Amino acid sequence: MEIKILKDILNANEGIAERNRQLLDNKGVFALNLMASPGAGKTSLILETIKMLKGKTRIGVIEGDISSSLDAEAIGKEGVPAIQINTGGACHLDANMLSSALSNMPLPDIELLLIENVGNLVCPASFALGEHKKVVISSIPEGDDKPFKYPLMFNIADAVLINKIDLLPYLKFDIEVFSKGIKGINEKVEIFPVSCVTSQGIQEWVSWLLTQISQR
Amino acid sequence: MEIKILKDILNANEGIAERNRQLLDNKGVFALNLMASPGAGKTSLILETIKMLKGKTRIGVIEGDISSSLDAEAIGKEGVPAIQINTGGACHLDANMLSSALSNMPLPDIELLLIENVGNLVCPASFALGEHKKVVISSIPEGDDKPFKYPLMFNIADAVLINKIDLLPYLKFDIEVFSKGIKGINEKVEIFPVSCVTSQGIQEWVSWLLTQISQR
Repeated sequence: MEIKILKDILNANEGIAERNRQLLDNKGVFALNLMASPGAGKTSLILETIKMLKGKTRIGVIEGDISSSLDAEAIGKEGVPAIQINTGGACHLDANMLSSALSNMPLPDIELLLIENVGNLVCPASFALGEHKKVVISSIPEGDDKPFKYPLMFNIADAVLINKIDLLPYLKFDIEVFSKGIKGINEKVEIFPVSCVTSQGIQEWVSWLLTQISQR
Repeated sequence: MEIKILKDILNANEGIAERNRQLLDNKGVFALNLMASPGAGKTSLILETIKMLKGKTRIGVIEGDISSSLDAEAIGKEGVPAIQINTGGACHLDANMLSSALSNMPLPDIELLLIENVGNLVCPASFALGEHKKVVISSIPEGDDKPFKYPLMFNIADAVLINKIDLLPYLKFDIEVFSKGIKGINEKVEIFPVSCVTSQGIQEWVSWLLTQISQR
């Protein structure tokens, strides 16, 4: 019975996600769904990406949060359109929340939409939003066993960023073990080791992103 | 309608949690529900706590995970009874899962039961298990804004550990800002800065724990 309800919810979500994607396609907007644990660096990555792409593509940001608006305020300062979705306690964004946010977003002015999901490695993996690519941000302090513990999240990712590589000297984290863990469940995923503090690896990430936008 | 279903689920959960607590009380077992983001150090803290309490109290561990059994294997090596709960994709433990696990646990041999919840700062906060105290483990790399972003989790905590303080020299994290953020929503919470690498602060945490057990 619980499973049946969940299936109904997920099916309804898929329908709305498909409509969101059509709207984005019609407006020429390429959308990323950014997912991660709390504190892995989603907002920092968005800020770095905005900095690197200034003048190259027009960016909009949608910030998913449970109740605060801290992140949207930080991003608004960068001069890009930023909208906050407060989930009211829910642990993930869903397509319906994105649909409401899109109606408040100046879509004709945007080429790239970055959607920051709620910090959670579980539920966001099950809810499509209408995005074109799913990106997971992992970070060195979380440990290299995460692909084994949260397999669905790493299975559905188009790209995985390994953030905070500036902390590698101080922590036990084997990038090869981590990468093999992901490739074992998701052969075609792209992996980018990055640091939002030193900007190492950000160029490679941004190049991939621009290629994705141009190929859509 | 969705809210009604959620209410029913939470009410049913409360009833089972209450029965779990009665069973634990009858057997003289003090139970902790350990909650945190993925990679904050739940398993490391459990291993440190086992090491410090060897010979002082008899410990059992229940490991909640989405699908793997990595953590239960690590803890089993310490020679304490360890049982794995695989949630089958669910993002939190619930009282019913704990009830099944308790029936497989040698309760008469245990005084302290450590329950490691699924790595998630959202949903586990809503599901009582039958524990006596709720403990949240936060960590330095996650950032000092977490109490503002995940208020329910920090609101329901009896104690909050700030883990990985050995990384303070390399990261921007203001323990005072973080602590004030928690105290603002939860005045009576106990806060313990610790490192499971250097063992700093672990003695204070373990002393608090022993006091809780003796006062129950």
